[in-house]
Amino acid sequence: MCPASLLDQLDSAADRHLSELIEWLKIPSISSDSTRVDDVHRACQWLADKFTASGLQVELIPTQGHPMVLAQTPPVNNAPVVVVYGHYDVQPVEPLDQWITGPFEPTVRDGNLYARGATDDKGQVLTHIQSVCDWVASGEPLPLQIKFLIEGEEEVGSENLERMLPDLSERLACDCVVISDSSQYAAGQPAITYGLRGIATYEIQVDGPSQDLHSGSFGGAVMNPAIALCHMLSSMVDDQGRIQIEGYYDDVRDLSQSERDQWQALPQDEEWFAKSIGVDELFGESGYSADERRWARPTFDVNGITAGHQGEGVKTIIPATATAKFSFRLVPDQDPKKITAALEKHLAKHAPKGVCWTLKPDHGAPGMLADTDSKFVKAANHAIESAFGTPPVLIREGGSIPIVTRFQEVLKCDCLLLGWGQSDDNTHSPNEKFSVADYHRGIRASAHLWDEIGKLS
Amino acid sequence: MCPASLLDQLDSAADRHLSELIEWLKIPSISSDSTRVDDVHRACQWLADKFTASGLQVELIPTQGHPMVLAQTPPVNNAPVVVVYGHYDVQPVEPLDQWITGPFEPTVRDGNLYARGATDDKGQVLTHIQSVCDWVASGEPLPLQIKFLIEGEEEVGSENLERMLPDLSERLACDCVVISDSSQYAAGQPAITYGLRGIATYEIQVDGPSQDLHSGSFGGAVMNPAIALCHMLSSMVDDQGRIQIEGYYDDVRDLSQSERDQWQALPQDEEWFAKSIGVDELFGESGYSADERRWARPTFDVNGITAGHQGEGVKTIIPATATAKFSFRLVPDQDPKKITAALEKHLAKHAPKGVCWTLKPDHGAPGMLADTDSKFVKAANHAIESAFGTPPVLIREGGSIPIVTRFQEVLKCDCLLLGWGQSDDNTHSPNEKFSVADYHRGIRASAHLWDEIGKLS
Repeated sequence: MCPASLLDQLDSAADRHLSELIEWLKIPSISSDSTRVDDVHRACQWLADKFTASGLQVELIPTQGHPMVLAQTPPVNNAPVVVVYGHYDVQPVEPLDQWITGPFEPTVRDGNLYARGATDDKGQVLTHIQSVCDWVASGEPLPLQIKFLIEGEEEVGSENLERMLPDLSERLACDCVVISDSSQYAAGQPAITYGLRGIATYEIQVDGPSQDLHSGSFGGAVMNPAIALCHMLSSMVDDQGRIQIEGYYDDVRDLSQSERDQWQALPQDEEWFAKSIGVDELFGESGYSADERRWARPTFDVNGITAGHQGEGVKTIIPATATAKFSFRLVPDQDPKKITAALEKHLAKHAPKGVCWTLKPDHGAPGMLADTDSKFVKAANHAIESAFGTPPVLIREGGSIPIVTRFQEVLKCDCLLLGWGQSDDNTHSPNEKFSVADYHRGIRASAHLWDEIGKLS
Repeated sequence: MCPASLLDQLDSAADRHLSELIEWLKIPSISSDSTRVDDVHRACQWLADKFTASGLQVELIPTQGHPMVLAQTPPVNNAPVVVVYGHYDVQPVEPLDQWITGPFEPTVRDGNLYARGATDDKGQVLTHIQSVCDWVASGEPLPLQIKFLIEGEEEVGSENLERMLPDLSERLACDCVVISDSSQYAAGQPAITYGLRGIATYEIQVDGPSQDLHSGSFGGAVMNPAIALCHMLSSMVDDQGRIQIEGYYDDVRDLSQSERDQWQALPQDEEWFAKSIGVDELFGESGYSADERRWARPTFDVNGITAGHQGEGVKTIIPATATAKFSFRLVPDQDPKKITAALEKHLAKHAPKGVCWTLKPDHGAPGMLADTDSKFVKAANHAIESAFGTPPVLIREGGSIPIVTRFQEVLKCDCLLLGWGQSDDNTHSPNEKFSVADYHRGIRASAHLWDEIGKLS
């Protein structure tokens, strides 16, 4: 059992736990924004200071991009070693005018804390940091060793960490990696996530005339780059969302019947789900439920597109250039490199004449599936039930944490994905939020988890 | 013959003619930009002052938008009456970073004057204003009456003028409308334009979820508005540029064989044309030359498109909304209203499920064909040969001057389209320019034209 005195101490520290999160969220650590480098480093330093003040051994690991923080408690003889992985960087914030309160002015409304990074991932990773720091401060011995690896480039693809991971593998040697960067199944229904989708992101630029042309004087004689781009993007997917690139589905691992049965038993409410995101009807491949499509089917999304005149009024031009950012979510066994090769072939075949195009692959990572029968899953099950009052369900998640597959490969360890967020937390969107109650429950569940994993030794 | 003393006077006033144009071009009269209302009015006032100083009778005609200037010389018994129509408003100027010198800092380089409006239409309309004002100042009697109607809303569709035209018809009563808002056929080859394409412009907005969503957590369950928009736009046109909307070609007036023969004789150089606009190859319907496609075939162009993340880096979202601005160029006998109805049907049929869309028709105008055997065409032929040293060729033009058809209908007059510009003048694009020599030749041709038309009485 988790020391009762520690649980009391966590309760009485609730205000400090919240104000520390608010302090951290105020730092606009947008990793993709080159004008925010100083802010990203400030967020990193805030974290290092927090660990140092709590007596952990702290190291800043520089990278070619933003630094990582490695902080650890002392080794415990014959006890398991856990790595807690998370990230202190956040997504961009536009469209800014849709935020009710500023993305970096954390505000509590109706029991939720609103800010960029509230749930993805500062709020979630801080639950583990609080539980460990408070445990250490309590004077009680931790029944395991914990190593925190908190990076600043998750939102831009974790490329530096991926590349450096083999060199760090000794320092990160562990039995299990714990990550809280996903969601519960629903409000009041915690979950353990055993599968993630992979990802492959791209930018494409289509170039036509050397400058914008008058569509009256030139229309009919020149291919319009914006139309060419629409043709190319449109050719990639049919009206059900099935990707039309040759070979795209070759390696897709099918859903097992037992998984489908298990998910069928979840309290799914697609009507509520559609309503919660503001659409009249859901969309996607027939023969699959919405959860199946989100968690275990590969998808194509245009993330941004831009060309020509976008301001007020009419400007009848043929734009010189059109660009788009798009991404695939991949499922286990799909290889991002093979997908890029197939995509290039497809575009070469479908690009209209009279324009040039360049494809820039950004980042790619395969999907991941964990063993649902592991002892760590059982330990997490107990810990979560103790803190949330309900046992967790086993789900997959449609998002991608590219580094997870690399942890499995390089560190040869188990991975535990314990999400304290909710699916409507607006991660990557305006008005990102995190339930204050779930933040505190997450801290308690984390403390219980160290106790449960400690018992495995 | 045009009075020789006047021609001398025009020559010696060349510097003033240029500096007055530069003065007018400095005023950023972008009619579609609501922050530029004061500038638009300043450009209007500049013009009224110029007419007043030259002794014309001047009237500012207010509209629901930007005012028009009506200026006239005294009636001449039994002589023709000509309306010179033009506009003092200009197109937007973005992308600003592509201008070599500022759009409102007129600069002469290599014999060309660079500025927004240099050729479209301040520079061209000013040729007629200079010839008339100088003729009046010379003391010689003008052999006809000239009425200038210069508006400030051509670049936003001339809707107010169109609506007010019947009420103005008595004051504008005339035998012929002269418009210089088009191009010569090539450098050194002047032209009379006897046909224009019509236009129909639209904005479409496709709405999906109530806000941007994380493409990992939601991708596969929700229709992506940017993809929906690509599907919809892509469905409207095939890979040859043929429009796929049912009924779109029903009313298209075919090119006559004699026109095709005449144009075939023009010194067409499609390779040079492609090179001049920076593309490797031209594009369009097979069976038609580039000039035929630009002048006499209907087209579809996307003028702008925007959705989701457009800044630096990756943001893996499903954007809440996607919008596009697009336009058709129509040919004679196509009716913009019928086109809008057919378009709405097409979109309703091709819009994917799971998104909502709204189509906002902006402005529409039919195409125009003038009688190439009229006495006014003959007069213009002589005038142009006198000033340019080469007789003009007869061409059509792919752009739209929506008001021309309305002049024909309401004023029951001939229309003369005499372009002094060049096809590579970058109208509606960065680095718009106008040949200084052609500006001065245009002023002379205009003076000769008044003489030739005066002889028709």
